[in-house]
Amino acid sequence: MPRTFKYDILSQIKTRWSSRALSSEKIPHDDIAALFEAARYAPSCFNEQPWLFIVADNETSLAAARLALTPSNAVWADKAPVLVIICAKKTFSMNNKDNGWHQFDAGTAWGYLTLEAERRGIIAHGMAGFDKDAARKQFDIPKEYDIIAMAALGRPGDKKELPMELQEREEPGTRKELDEIVHYGVFRK
Amino acid sequence: MPRTFKYDILSQIKTRWSSRALSSEKIPHDDIAALFEAARYAPSCFNEQPWLFIVADNETSLAAARLALTPSNAVWADKAPVLVIICAKKTFSMNNKDNGWHQFDAGTAWGYLTLEAERRGIIAHGMAGFDKDAARKQFDIPKEYDIIAMAALGRPGDKKELPMELQEREEPGTRKELDEIVHYGVFRK
Repeated sequence: MPRTFKYDILSQIKTRWSSRALSSEKIPHDDIAALFEAARYAPSCFNEQPWLFIVADNETSLAAARLALTPSNAVWADKAPVLVIICAKKTFSMNNKDNGWHQFDAGTAWGYLTLEAERRGIIAHGMAGFDKDAARKQFDIPKEYDIIAMAALGRPGDKKELPMELQEREEPGTRKELDEIVHYGVFRK
Repeated sequence: MPRTFKYDILSQIKTRWSSRALSSEKIPHDDIAALFEAARYAPSCFNEQPWLFIVADNETSLAAARLALTPSNAVWADKAPVLVIICAKKTFSMNNKDNGWHQFDAGTAWGYLTLEAERRGIIAHGMAGFDKDAARKQFDIPKEYDIIAMAALGRPGDKKELPMELQEREEPGTRKELDEIVHYGVFRK
């Protein structure tokens, strides 16, 4: 079902959705680097910038990253020319205290990344279905960092190459009504 | 120091920064609603959309929200015509299991909100400095929701009305180098 918008919003937010029909076509390095440049300028608590992106973009690193994917994601994400492991440092660098906003801030940076990807015609599809321990081991990620999500990056590909079940899900996701997520004045039961 | 960009990125990401010089001028409701429309279309784990925004936009609710601000934020954010409490539901609605991505996903929605704000000439300044218990009590927020951050929304105001110390900080924040936050192939010590 096509999305309709009551309010005009940033075009990249309107058109972005999490397709699984990726092409295995290589993406120029500068396009990939620009996505992280976008992530880099996200705001964060005390400007800590807790985010860290581990990027698999060649056969060796992609093979290692694929080992962490659950089968339900591997079936489409194995094709991606770039896989990313999204991490966040758990403590503030200035005082080593717990940073209670590290996951939230990493989410903001991921949001910026997805919109720059949309601007460049790149699908950026986040994934929760993966083995964190495997990812940590494959990429030697220190325990000071939470491993939060993985992401598949790629140009749009041919939907017909997806399993039938996933072909049927190839459309923008629905959303809750605005008044479910915004409460004015007080929490509404 | 003006920011420079090696890669061209979404203009709203380039120009956005967290000013404290807010005007107390009212913002039309449709402009505020549009920010949440932007947040609404963020991606999330299993499309749970765990974010919830409690919005204070009249004298009663603003007075309640101001009670939660720490003095260092109150000194500038008390002027904001809109204050927001950013919450996220801790469990998945489909099965009541812990949602390990609720904070990350709320961060993504917040990121979308900030860029739509920038597009509309609205400052959206996130704050970690506030009393979560006070916010929970004032707005009757159930314990099923994490209270993550607050935000001040407002049109740009007069920097000279800020305390001198904050006037000196009125410029875009710096960022880590790109290669500090992006590691290709393996975590780099």
